[in-house]
Amino acid sequence: MILGTIMGTVVSTRKCRNLVGFKLLLVEPYYGEKKNIFVAADTMGAGIGELVLVTTDNTTQFALDRSAPIDAFVVGIVDAPPQLGK
Amino acid sequence: MILGTIMGTVVSTRKCRNLVGFKLLLVEPYYGEKKNIFVAADTMGAGIGELVLVTTDNTTQFALDRSAPIDAFVVGIVDAPPQLGK
Amino acid sequence: MILGTIMGTVVSTRKCRNLVGFKLLLVEPYYGEKKNIFVAADTMGAGIGELVLVTTDNTTQFALDRSAPIDAFVVGIVDAPPQLGK
Amino acid sequence: MILGTIMGTVVSTRKCRNLVGFKLLLVEPYYGEKKNIFVAADTMGAGIGELVLVTTDNTTQFALDRSAPIDAFVVGIVDAPPQLGK
Amino acid sequence: MILGTIMGTVVSTRKCRNLVGFKLLLVEPYYGEKKNIFVAADTMGAGIGELVLVTTDNTTQFALDRSAPIDAFVVGIVDAPPQLGK
Repeated sequence: MILGTIMGTVVSTRKCRNLVGFKLLLVEPYYGEKKNIFVAADTMGAGIGELVLVTTDNTTQFALDRSAPIDAFVVGIVDAPPQLGK
Repeated sequence: MILGTIMGTVVSTRKCRNLVGFKLLLVEPYYGEKKNIFVAADTMGAGIGELVLVTTDNTTQFALDRSAPIDAFVVGIVDAPPQLGK
Repeated sequence: MILGTIMGTVVSTRKCRNLVGFKLLLVEPYYGEKKNIFVAADTMGAGIGELVLVTTDNTTQFALDRSAPIDAFVVGIVDAPPQLGK
Repeated sequence: MILGTIMGTVVSTRKCRNLVGFKLLLVEPYYGEKKNIFVAADTMGAGIGELVLVTTDNTTQFALDRSAPIDAFVVGIVDAPPQLGK
Repeated sequence: MILGTIMGTVVSTRKCRNLVGFKLLLVEPYYGEKKNIFVAADTMGAGIGELVLVTTDNTTQFALDRSAPIDAFVVGIVDAPPQLGK
């Protein structure tokens, strides 16, 4: 999974019908290349600036109530920035 | 998912039969390495210059009416360029 | 999907039995890092120098008659090099 | 699979219910870009500083007792740092 | 698929039970970033220095007798180093 910071939201009025009901969040990777911002779907209500745990690819489906074309999904909100070596 | 800008179309006369009926679009990543242009299938009618949301890998199948060898699919047209921090 | 140019073939006598019958092609990415040459399976008869459309990951299975351990498969031969903005 | 070194843990109180029971570990790649630290789930009890083998994507599911939205999972603890050429 | 050179082996005594019986090989990519060494499972008996064809992600499962948490698997031993343009 990837740790990332919520940077904003994406609004799409014309979208695939089984994306309806998901919030679409811009996520900046916490480690590695910060410029590689991607979009993750969310149902936890993560807010801007929060650090989240995102799962990717087809494994997102195991966090959903119904199948959806989502390749990145917020599966956790992180309590505090991690400290390496602890 | 990835945000990308439609840069053109790809024409392939000799192609896999279950790709027939999909428009094949060149997509430039909006964030990260812009040179990594890829091809996404589309049925929404996204036009050149539009900003779209693309899902990847096997999760594309949940946006399709029938299974197809498509690893990138346009699942939404974005209303306006996102603003970081909002 | 990825656009790529056929650069050569790979010959493997000792291989997984359900790879028998596929041509194995070296593909150079048309966009992005050209040095990241990979191997795609083909049944369309794409030749050296031709520009092809390759699907990746598990979605390859939807282009095959039977399941096979193939993570990149030629799903189309492109008519002409794409022109950005058209 | 990827070889990585355990660098720390991630604590997430608000998380997807089928992530409960997994330890979430920060993993630094042993080869390649060390800055690309990612999060892997673990049930083996790998400790900080240990070298582990991590499988990714949907293949994680074959190591789990029940499906879970986990795209990186510790499948082995490595006995000793590998030596190239041996 | 990826072409790679076998650079060594990985020994893991404490591992997931459905990894038992597979040899774990260190593989250096033949093209692209050689430093991105990864681990592939093998049942063909590929030896150090040999050039192999590796399939990735979930497609590995179609080369296995039983499902296993393996995201890279040796599916062929290459007869000779490929020559570009031939």
